[in-house]
Amino acid sequence: MTSDGNWEKIAAAKRAALAEAIPKEYRVPEQQLPPESQLDVTSWPKKSGWFSSKELEITDSTALQILEKVASKTWTSEEVTRAFCKRAAAAQQLTNCLSDAFFDEAIESAQALDEHLSRTGNLIGPLHGLPISLKDNFNIKGKDSTVGFASLVNEPAEYNATLVDILEKLGAVRYCKTNVPTAMMIAESVNNVFGRTVNPLNRKVTSGGSSGGESALIAFGGSPLGIGTDIGGSLRIPAACTGIYTLRPSFGRFTTQRCRSGLAGQEAVASVNGPMARTLEDITLYSRAIIDAQPWTLDPKMLPIPWRQVEPKKKLKIAVLSNDGICLPTPPVLRALKETTEGLKEAGHEIVEWDPKLHRKALELLGRMFVADGGKSVEALLAPAQEPYRPEMQQYEDAKELGVLDMWKLHLERSELQRQYLEQWMSHDDLDAILAPTTPYASVPHGDFKYVGYTGVYNVVDYSAVSFPSGVTVDKAKDTLASDLKAQSEFCQGARDSYDPELLHGLPVSLQLVAQRLQEEKVLAMTATVLQAIKSAGKANL
Amino acid sequence: MTSDGNWEKIAAAKRAALAEAIPKEYRVPEQQLPPESQLDVTSWPKKSGWFSSKELEITDSTALQILEKVASKTWTSEEVTRAFCKRAAAAQQLTNCLSDAFFDEAIESAQALDEHLSRTGNLIGPLHGLPISLKDNFNIKGKDSTVGFASLVNEPAEYNATLVDILEKLGAVRYCKTNVPTAMMIAESVNNVFGRTVNPLNRKVTSGGSSGGESALIAFGGSPLGIGTDIGGSLRIPAACTGIYTLRPSFGRFTTQRCRSGLAGQEAVASVNGPMARTLEDITLYSRAIIDAQPWTLDPKMLPIPWRQVEPKKKLKIAVLSNDGICLPTPPVLRALKETTEGLKEAGHEIVEWDPKLHRKALELLGRMFVADGGKSVEALLAPAQEPYRPEMQQYEDAKELGVLDMWKLHLERSELQRQYLEQWMSHDDLDAILAPTTPYASVPHGDFKYVGYTGVYNVVDYSAVSFPSGVTVDKAKDTLASDLKAQSEFCQGARDSYDPELLHGLPVSLQLVAQRLQEEKVLAMTATVLQAIKSAGKANL
Repeated sequence: MTSDGNWEKIAAAKRAALAEAIPKEYRVPEQQLPPESQLDVTSWPKKSGWFSSKELEITDSTALQILEKVASKTWTSEEVTRAFCKRAAAAQQLTNCLSDAFFDEAIESAQALDEHLSRTGNLIGPLHGLPISLKDNFNIKGKDSTVGFASLVNEPAEYNATLVDILEKLGAVRYCKTNVPTAMMIAESVNNVFGRTVNPLNRKVTSGGSSGGESALIAFGGSPLGIGTDIGGSLRIPAACTGIYTLRPSFGRFTTQRCRSGLAGQEAVASVNGPMARTLEDITLYSRAIIDAQPWTLDPKMLPIPWRQVEPKKKLKIAVLSNDGICLPTPPVLRALKETTEGLKEAGHEIVEWDPKLHRKALELLGRMFVADGGKSVEALLAPAQEPYRPEMQQYEDAKELGVLDMWKLHLERSELQRQYLEQWMSHDDLDAILAPTTPYASVPHGDFKYVGYTGVYNVVDYSAVSFPSGVTVDKAKDTLASDLKAQSEFCQGARDSYDPELLHGLPVSLQLVAQRLQEEKVLAMTATVLQAIKSAGKANL
Repeated sequence: MTSDGNWEKIAAAKRAALAEAIPKEYRVPEQQLPPESQLDVTSWPKKSGWFSSKELEITDSTALQILEKVASKTWTSEEVTRAFCKRAAAAQQLTNCLSDAFFDEAIESAQALDEHLSRTGNLIGPLHGLPISLKDNFNIKGKDSTVGFASLVNEPAEYNATLVDILEKLGAVRYCKTNVPTAMMIAESVNNVFGRTVNPLNRKVTSGGSSGGESALIAFGGSPLGIGTDIGGSLRIPAACTGIYTLRPSFGRFTTQRCRSGLAGQEAVASVNGPMARTLEDITLYSRAIIDAQPWTLDPKMLPIPWRQVEPKKKLKIAVLSNDGICLPTPPVLRALKETTEGLKEAGHEIVEWDPKLHRKALELLGRMFVADGGKSVEALLAPAQEPYRPEMQQYEDAKELGVLDMWKLHLERSELQRQYLEQWMSHDDLDAILAPTTPYASVPHGDFKYVGYTGVYNVVDYSAVSFPSGVTVDKAKDTLASDLKAQSEFCQGARDSYDPELLHGLPVSLQLVAQRLQEEKVLAMTATVLQAIKSAGKANL
């Protein structure tokens, strides 16, 4: 660790190095940058004139389209990679979403892929030529994984994360890593090294966290597909804040081996990783490619469960959770739930209610698990660079070490909660899924993301879940706050206090579809069914 | 807990209650009991004249045969159950293998099953009418699960273990529970409440532990099939000591939910449970029946992996581990390995060597995991009845609490070890299995079972394993100790010091076949292939 430095100096040097890592030709000239007052910068790539029409065509494509065009030699992997490097560079300048950039290496990899295809006529693998962005904690040999700590700057990884090796074997091109919050334990992406990532849809609001560098990058068009992680909502929250798709898998499908953690060795609740992209098809194709690579032959914690093709039922039985009793979702989220539920009913699906009776207990357990070591893991990462606790990390500073005996008791409480949750699920005959808010917010002004309860429950029970944009966007005319509602908790009061329909107007609203543990294929297939119902309902309403 | 009693009084009362629980008609008259000097009592049921020929026919049958005969109405479940109750009662008197007996309830259950079959023509499930014995820690509502602690006497369970519910649903008849060591953390079955279980094949040696009540009962013929548990070898060691079969599954196939543990909430190494029986076919049919019952719909920790039919390869690649470098197996075990290996080669299988380079580290980790709470869990179970530590539990008395941060670090060490073990496995192209000793001993005189390293390694990596009798029995003429060998450790020295070919002569010697994690179907199928090779080799040698 960098023990002889002051965190501010280390951080400033690291930021300068990151800026330098972006080649000159990919730096947007000052005069072409949008004014700071421009909140939505997603239209900037097209309007700025800085991109060629082919660069725009490439970077506006889905992963599926890119793979097809590279496979058919319509595009080279090199030109695809160059286009994404350029757009990612712009994303960094407009949203501060990166933690590392290694574009030259990426272009070299892409050239090698092109050469291979040209020479052999064969693709390297199912992700041949696809640029994939990686959250900061995925170790890449020779590169930093700081997870936002100054002490981890200039401590390059000695090995690749197992997933990084798999992606390379499948033909993916890595070109950048993305920003996270300190220890990846805050629902916004802000830390003392790289600072704050902002939302390209509205730079006054958060792109979420902890995979909020990814979500900002993808929403801006700087990546067709990225990999994030989730221990309390860290995939789903940033996906929801930016209106993209993600799958939070159950533990055991996608390898997490040899990644950096802010709470290394913590196992009471498992961190998982999954894809983030602009379409459901893209996260599905990624999921299948990873499972087909048999990660259990490399990572002993992975389950030997091959990809299971699912034919979704025509009529789903879905339990709707609209208020967990702790934090009432803000008006646009409630409207998204209502409209989606109506669409599902119209399409013939069966809707029942989900009673959140176990949620409060689940969240209390989750909070205790995160700080069971008395915050010592975080403290040990802050101390060498005299780095201060960020205010969002107060609970880690205040925490008391549990001791192993009490940890074992906590395991028992968690296992009993998991048993009860499954029992409740099974008490609804043939229940297929729970439809719930991903977060109580569309997004929030920076610093206001306080409540992760809607996602965190499913980390405790380790269920598979997709967060998807519902098609609803915040409408300041429709989505007004009822003034006579009593707040259910301080979280609920906070959600109401920070709710600003004027600021949020136009932002997408996401929901999550939750299936049981290890039903990744099923929840992806069911999400397609839900999207179809939303689409049909939308048409019917025209 | 029973906090107002002295452990000796509690234990004496409990033993008296157990003796009372055996109906008068099943108590062997004093004059018919074999003399204490008779070490092998397995021939006693036939020779004593105490059993009818039908009772002997029933209790000498395999589970498979019993199920067929009940299904075809050749036998009633009631007569089968009565026969096993009687033989279990004798087993208890001769080997002290039970911790509870509830024969009247069992006979009632059997009668209900017979009535159902007679009325509907249908079986309740695939285990219809089969008596199944259960290790003491399986909770049965209203009955004790003391796991050998006086403080847990007269603390009846408030619910059934999930497996108990499943067994009932499948048609199995429960009739007794079996003895264990204190906290189930000793490799022999001895505790301060029920005392010591002895081996029916030789009452001067141990039936192993911690599932040694089961192994004694089954080896005596008092149960066609029993369920034990394994966290360091507790299924495989007693199976080996008595020459029966067991499957140690990986965690996630057979539910462990709602069972009693001596280290409740300990998760760094998972306890699992599995079947013990006199044939491979019987443990296979049980395994399939449980998986087909979809335990993942009841226990959220179970994996939704249906039964996978395996066609074993004609030519297996097997790595042989004959000496882990810590404790050299005693002569009969080395001979069993050698003869089995030769049989496998003759049958055309490929044999390579397994390098135990990771075993020492694995076992060191296992030892630390067991006492990570500083022995507080055990202490809390001893204290209320002022029960003393047994000498075998010294490590729990001496242990120091790790703290959660160090526990997390221990998780990291274990995960890295698991990764390395898999890497080593994969470095042998297409390796199918490891063939290893189950224990360094055939069995040992009471108190001499010190080394669990050959089994414990596979708990750390959570691999599937079958322990099976190799066909070799101890031969005092052949199995002499080389006097010039230097002991590799104190365990090695202990194994040599306690080795008494005169005493052990005739005892069966078991080996274990180990497959990768979650390859239960494969390891069962491969064991059949290995048995076939042994049989063919045996014939060739005639």
